[in-house]
Amino acid sequence: MVEHSALDIMCLNKYCHSSSSSSSSENDKKDITKEKISLSGDYPKKNAEFLSGQYGTNLLLAGVAMMLANIPRTRVVKEEHLLSFLTCLMIIQLIWMMWYILVRNKRKNTRTERDVHATSSWIRGGLSLLAVLSLIMDAFRIGYYVGDQSCVSAVLAVYPVIHATHTMAQVHFLWFHIKDVIKSFETFERFGVIHAVFTNLNLWCNGVMSEAEHFLTNHVRRLHVAGYENVTAVHPEALCNCTSSSCTLFYTSVSYLYPFNIEYHIFVSALLFVMWKNIGRTIDLSHPKRLPTKTHNLAIGPVLGLLALGSTIGILVVYISNMDDSIAARESAISMFYIFGIVILSVMCFAGASGLIIYRADHVPLDTSKNPSRQLDIELLFGSSIGAWFMSWCSIVAVFGTNSNPSYRWLNFAYSLLIVFEKYIQNLFIVESLYRQQEEGEKDDPELPSSEIFSVNSSLGTSFNGIINQAFEASESPSVTVENELEDNGQVDASQDVRKSFEGPLPLGNQVVEPRNIKRQILKNISVFLIMCNMSLWILPAFGCRPQYDNGMEEELFGFSIWTTVLNFAIPLSLFYRMHSVASLFEVFRHV
Amino acid sequence: MVEHSALDIMCLNKYCHSSSSSSSSENDKKDITKEKISLSGDYPKKNAEFLSGQYGTNLLLAGVAMMLANIPRTRVVKEEHLLSFLTCLMIIQLIWMMWYILVRNKRKNTRTERDVHATSSWIRGGLSLLAVLSLIMDAFRIGYYVGDQSCVSAVLAVYPVIHATHTMAQVHFLWFHIKDVIKSFETFERFGVIHAVFTNLNLWCNGVMSEAEHFLTNHVRRLHVAGYENVTAVHPEALCNCTSSSCTLFYTSVSYLYPFNIEYHIFVSALLFVMWKNIGRTIDLSHPKRLPTKTHNLAIGPVLGLLALGSTIGILVVYISNMDDSIAARESAISMFYIFGIVILSVMCFAGASGLIIYRADHVPLDTSKNPSRQLDIELLFGSSIGAWFMSWCSIVAVFGTNSNPSYRWLNFAYSLLIVFEKYIQNLFIVESLYRQQEEGEKDDPELPSSEIFSVNSSLGTSFNGIINQAFEASESPSVTVENELEDNGQVDASQDVRKSFEGPLPLGNQVVEPRNIKRQILKNISVFLIMCNMSLWILPAFGCRPQYDNGMEEELFGFSIWTTVLNFAIPLSLFYRMHSVASLFEVFRHV
Repeated sequence: MVEHSALDIMCLNKYCHSSSSSSSSENDKKDITKEKISLSGDYPKKNAEFLSGQYGTNLLLAGVAMMLANIPRTRVVKEEHLLSFLTCLMIIQLIWMMWYILVRNKRKNTRTERDVHATSSWIRGGLSLLAVLSLIMDAFRIGYYVGDQSCVSAVLAVYPVIHATHTMAQVHFLWFHIKDVIKSFETFERFGVIHAVFTNLNLWCNGVMSEAEHFLTNHVRRLHVAGYENVTAVHPEALCNCTSSSCTLFYTSVSYLYPFNIEYHIFVSALLFVMWKNIGRTIDLSHPKRLPTKTHNLAIGPVLGLLALGSTIGILVVYISNMDDSIAARESAISMFYIFGIVILSVMCFAGASGLIIYRADHVPLDTSKNPSRQLDIELLFGSSIGAWFMSWCSIVAVFGTNSNPSYRWLNFAYSLLIVFEKYIQNLFIVESLYRQQEEGEKDDPELPSSEIFSVNSSLGTSFNGIINQAFEASESPSVTVENELEDNGQVDASQDVRKSFEGPLPLGNQVVEPRNIKRQILKNISVFLIMCNMSLWILPAFGCRPQYDNGMEEELFGFSIWTTVLNFAIPLSLFYRMHSVASLFEVFRHV
Repeated sequence: MVEHSALDIMCLNKYCHSSSSSSSSENDKKDITKEKISLSGDYPKKNAEFLSGQYGTNLLLAGVAMMLANIPRTRVVKEEHLLSFLTCLMIIQLIWMMWYILVRNKRKNTRTERDVHATSSWIRGGLSLLAVLSLIMDAFRIGYYVGDQSCVSAVLAVYPVIHATHTMAQVHFLWFHIKDVIKSFETFERFGVIHAVFTNLNLWCNGVMSEAEHFLTNHVRRLHVAGYENVTAVHPEALCNCTSSSCTLFYTSVSYLYPFNIEYHIFVSALLFVMWKNIGRTIDLSHPKRLPTKTHNLAIGPVLGLLALGSTIGILVVYISNMDDSIAARESAISMFYIFGIVILSVMCFAGASGLIIYRADHVPLDTSKNPSRQLDIELLFGSSIGAWFMSWCSIVAVFGTNSNPSYRWLNFAYSLLIVFEKYIQNLFIVESLYRQQEEGEKDDPELPSSEIFSVNSSLGTSFNGIINQAFEASESPSVTVENELEDNGQVDASQDVRKSFEGPLPLGNQVVEPRNIKRQILKNISVFLIMCNMSLWILPAFGCRPQYDNGMEEELFGFSIWTTVLNFAIPLSLFYRMHSVASLFEVFRHV
């Protein structure tokens, strides 16, 4: 015992000379190599993470401080200062990306490890679409500058040009390098990646603030029109004399493209963050089984979802046109919004709860393997729920505390409560869906080509035994056993005949005996429906349907400044939640 | 190959009857047992975490919404409503704790697993002290109520009584149950623990808001005295006619005890959160090696630290007395504060950086074992840094953007920049210290009682060989090998003589040959110094020394409402950071 521990301790000592057995000299060699590696700039991983993480955080905080100083009331820090700062950040990121791509191309021969979970082609496709819309926005901005160049700073032209370049380079990076697991120059690359993450977060914050400012200006203008004079007026910046007629068009179009640009930046920063987490990781190289996305029997979900989407557009148009109208029209528009919200949220709660009940009836162990991408997804989902939850609780307090009694008082209460429940249930549904093990994997095992056909046989057998329940979890296994037994007896040919006899249509049996498939179809329908509902609930606030500003109850109780602060914090989070849950639910759709 | 996978699949199926080998029937039995366990209320762990985590978050958000509605300007939601809500939360927590303790006592025979990392007796001691101060605060509150009972609600008396009971019960819980690893009724207990966590967070938030309100009232009063009339006045709530003469005494005393109460609640919630994370965990039962905390050669650190602490008290007194004075006196007090801050922060930066350089010269692998308590410590450290960082970046922007030019303009800049660097370096130092493996563990191994004595021999040997460097990492190992060789040759008695001959004083050799011990002493001195500096930097803002309110630069640039919002968010975080880093640095002190 003593000898053992003595040997163990010896191996810790890198230069020990005392005993001279051959094994110890081998150990020495190994240790010296280790030492060399450790000296060649291999800063401990935990520290490197912290070093770069703190750098990134400070970058964001500095940016936010500048943005706060840039609010309209004071304007001591001018917009061009802020845009110059953002332009610098983007240029640094561009240089790093170029460097990274050049180094990778030089070493084309050495295989780069890739994290297959990091992203999927449909996410990259979606991001490319958002990037295209961002590019259009940049074009509009340049056009706006061309008309206005006499009176605005040149930074306003440089910024969209750099932003467009940055967008294109970044999309290229996303397509070809986002899955890379970096294993060389780790500490330096960490800084590069985290710089990219926080540059995008800065751009996101800037977008969010511009959007909020734009919306607030509109809101105050409406309040003045409606006769509430006691609110401090926020004057929109005067458009300077435009030399081309299309200036105003450019100006207003940009505001419709903002929501897409905002979502683009936050999504990219989430992907880059996963890349950062992956630096230096050892990936287990088993490739995930690709499941074919079956779409048959997918009817109720999409139909209901399209119904929701369609009526959303209707509600949006009516709401926005009524807001500039009389007070009675405003009130009825707000009531209409709440009623629509209550209906859609109730159905969503019901759908999510059904999904959870189906899972409860069907025990599958959870998958506990390491997957930073999935973990981040879940954390973001939870974190971004906080925005809407907080808004809802404030509304609930306002409903009870208010002195006024508008017609939509209790509608607001029901709506807010349902928002809380809906996110609660939806999050649980998504978490459970993403963490359940995919037991269907075995079906696609190339070594078992016949199991799918045979499953009809086995499932018939079990259902005839009167057991239609969890036994279906691996319904193909008995068939395989049968096949093995047949093979052992040299009766393979005979079994193939049996197989053929089952390949014919079995309409009745197929419907009765596959409760598991029915469950999967229900789950797929639920996720499609939830995807479309979440899209609807993104569209409404993204394009200006924000009753939290218009109903006046919360503003009365909390005061204008507190309530707008709460909304400026909560609405961007809530918008991100909806977009992010669409992405997660799409993952669920492919997973179940 | 096919047979293997077929068998594997079979075992997934819980009711498969087909093949009848004995091994498969055994498998069946096991699986049925598993199924039973899984049916008896064993909700998947990930879901239970989410279910309870979401519940807790909503509890906090609802509380914060009520607190926001309780700000003085509107007071629609009265203080008694808020206090009733908090009282309810505390009563529920009390019931749960009673239930928990009763159940534990019933099962005294069954051993409960404990997480030894969860807390240490000195943390619990510190918390008990804070709890005692909280109890005194409750006593003052009751006294205040007794004098005022004619015009205030009875809730104001019930609240401190329940709070005192809650505090005592909770301290008892912390002493005897906080390390428990819960393995029964997991889902229910999760709700209980998370309820306790968020009850404490709610109480923390309430404390923070009351403190901020109290401070803001003072600040506005001072501004009026100093002649700034354009700030919206926040009228302190009129004290109702007090029947006893000690009312005002009670009222003012409470405000001095607030900081302790605030720290108490946030610390308890962190400990309870670790307990929540531990639910259902499998602890690896190897006990950590207890290191004796050596205190010899501990001089420079404590002396410098005491110097810092002493001057802090002086600065605090001068600052607070000058604030109610003329504008010139105010300006000089603010300049004095910044100069003091710059000196202390520079020394702290230097100390932290020295620690990091010592670590760089001395490679030790990082400890990657799972330890939720340590991970939470690090995350909290990082998260709470954000408050002060954000404040600093705002100040830096203000220094560059301001139009006025007070004498302390660039002092403010240097101070803010140093705050950023100091936290950056200190966090890195703490992270690296806590994650480094304790190689001294072997010294205390009871099976190697003689190694410490022998190390003098071996270290002499290696230093005579001219190698005074990393070889000391395990300097005791050659000695052990020597001993083993001696034992093999039957010369143990002779070796004991050798040992005795080395037990005499070796003053010169001891000083020269133990660079590793010198390093440890330097590190210990650094941590003691940093502990005291962090205490100083906690005392200053906790007791009213907040130049961010008084210097006027940021307020001018950002506007009163934005800047007070930033401060109300950042200062509590910053205070928590200082307290928490004291705790972490104490851990570092024991660890190095």
